[in-house]
Amino acid sequence: MKRENTYIAIMAGGVGSRFWPYSREMRPKQFLDILNVGKSLIRLTFERFLNLVDADHIFILTNEKYRALVKEHLPEIPNENIIGEPSRNNTAPCIAYTALKLHNLNPEANMVVAPSDHVILKETEFLNKIKSALQFADENEALLTLGIEPSRPDTGYGYIKREGPELKLGSYKVERFTEKPDKQTAQSFLDEGSYLWNAGIFIWKTKNIIASFQQNANQIIETLTEDISQLNTEGETEYIKRVYPNTESISIDYAILEKAKNVYTIPADIAWSDLGTWNSLHAYLDKDDNGNVISKNSTLLFDVKNSLVKLPEGKMLVAKDLEGYFIIDDGQVLLIYPKEEEQAIKQVRQSIDDQNFL
Amino acid sequence: MKRENTYIAIMAGGVGSRFWPYSREMRPKQFLDILNVGKSLIRLTFERFLNLVDADHIFILTNEKYRALVKEHLPEIPNENIIGEPSRNNTAPCIAYTALKLHNLNPEANMVVAPSDHVILKETEFLNKIKSALQFADENEALLTLGIEPSRPDTGYGYIKREGPELKLGSYKVERFTEKPDKQTAQSFLDEGSYLWNAGIFIWKTKNIIASFQQNANQIIETLTEDISQLNTEGETEYIKRVYPNTESISIDYAILEKAKNVYTIPADIAWSDLGTWNSLHAYLDKDDNGNVISKNSTLLFDVKNSLVKLPEGKMLVAKDLEGYFIIDDGQVLLIYPKEEEQAIKQVRQSIDDQNFL
Repeated sequence: MKRENTYIAIMAGGVGSRFWPYSREMRPKQFLDILNVGKSLIRLTFERFLNLVDADHIFILTNEKYRALVKEHLPEIPNENIIGEPSRNNTAPCIAYTALKLHNLNPEANMVVAPSDHVILKETEFLNKIKSALQFADENEALLTLGIEPSRPDTGYGYIKREGPELKLGSYKVERFTEKPDKQTAQSFLDEGSYLWNAGIFIWKTKNIIASFQQNANQIIETLTEDISQLNTEGETEYIKRVYPNTESISIDYAILEKAKNVYTIPADIAWSDLGTWNSLHAYLDKDDNGNVISKNSTLLFDVKNSLVKLPEGKMLVAKDLEGYFIIDDGQVLLIYPKEEEQAIKQVRQSIDDQNFL
Repeated sequence: MKRENTYIAIMAGGVGSRFWPYSREMRPKQFLDILNVGKSLIRLTFERFLNLVDADHIFILTNEKYRALVKEHLPEIPNENIIGEPSRNNTAPCIAYTALKLHNLNPEANMVVAPSDHVILKETEFLNKIKSALQFADENEALLTLGIEPSRPDTGYGYIKREGPELKLGSYKVERFTEKPDKQTAQSFLDEGSYLWNAGIFIWKTKNIIASFQQNANQIIETLTEDISQLNTEGETEYIKRVYPNTESISIDYAILEKAKNVYTIPADIAWSDLGTWNSLHAYLDKDDNGNVISKNSTLLFDVKNSLVKLPEGKMLVAKDLEGYFIIDDGQVLLIYPKEEEQAIKQVRQSIDDQNFL
């Protein structure tokens, strides 16, 4: 693939509601340094693609209200590369608009669509797969989605079923997409071996995705091309503000990928996570210990004074800086409460009983 | 640097005490898939270095009792590349032993020493910096440590002070190392601009690190070379089992880096984290309106703020008047500890070990 024909479209419109309230609407997940590495997820995504193209070939698709945040996190991006959706009409109109804009800039454009709030630890492998996908998309009029090799029967992801033998550049034809499955179905996908996770990373030539929109979701293209001469001009913002809200609100998966016949996938082993639910940390924290058993009730207390401790036999307490507390664990309820408020404890206990919590 | 002269030594002996009680001794952090990407931290570290060398040039330095776990996670590694320390004598003897072994295999060997339980998101940049460091170490008889550009006044890391102008390949002379600073000092380091985080990633020729040991910590080299002809033979295991426990237990920082005159650093912007503390976990997890992190439990909280609560599923917490605490119950141990004293949790763990509680 020629570097000058390659463009990146980073999807950054999400409001991160699953992270609420830590990630409130005005500071969604992509703008947070979730891994504490000194960079937000959108910054990491941007820098990852700088290995492929220059900043002026990277476009950010976001809600108009996040424009200032995007500029703060990605000051290298030219203003005109920040595409603000006037309304939230799901992913299909947003991708169609960007494809039309890029195609207007460069009729030979290839685009990579990628989320802004995922992590990818195997960057080298990721970049190699993207390069393969760009080449395959160029030579085969194909729409490609990167397929993540699944490592567990996750019920939080959509799945891609690949079919047939491996084609050129490590690619496969896609047989179908599957919505988030139940646990049993997810396990059968894993056992079957030809299913991949859909990470929302797409690779195609703008002319091919536009053709597919015309065939499968023409309302969107017709609405956006009412006056196509406005794209990449000073009138674009006003024009888009007027026509965009009239596009059908639909995801790219429904509008295109589940209908088009020329959809392919390249499986990729890139250590990916959408960090979407913190299952990771829950899974990690939930881990049982198979080894050591505490044979007696023991405590390690530092500056714990005037407190009453009652724990199940064999359980250990490690505590610091507590004065005048009840620390009571009856196996079902853990109570850590100021001793002087004994009366309140009774009321609390009563309200627990009343609400049938236990 | 010639690929055939390059060797990687991955340090995997840690027992992960800062993650205690969720990472107990038999399953330390490097063997956990903390980010839920389908690969453990040691696996990610191994695959990162496969971009530089083949598996037979990667050595794992671990405690003898983790040998089976290492083989499970890294089946490609030849048995003889898993170096089990017979005793926990800190990092200097372990690195000296590995350097002697590699030097015996190849007198022109260069080695990279790296921890097994960190994350690096900017892999391409990391690999470029390692290549620069290998070249600089080869041409300048230098001992190099990668310096992480600090993004906040972290009090949990050691700092490197670089001095003078930039030298070849983006390197600087190291003026001194500084232990974990207090908050005010850390902030002054950040403001001053010439301080970097010490990530424990070292690059040097084996002949130069061995020479530095001879000059600065000769007891270790003398002890390990009593009969150097045993290295890389069938007799090595028995030999090392006998002599290794007699080496001085000291860190590579104290033994070499703070004394040697030929220490250099290459600053690296690689989106690094040691994932070392509960505080970082706290940053990842969802928070309620008072800044508390709580996993799926029913709670009745009164004036409980900025705390991390983790209880067995279904268990209820009733608490009042706690600010900034870890409240962690793994079924066997109940921990109620000020969050700001996370470093102390490590010491607590040590004293539990010393008392044979577990």
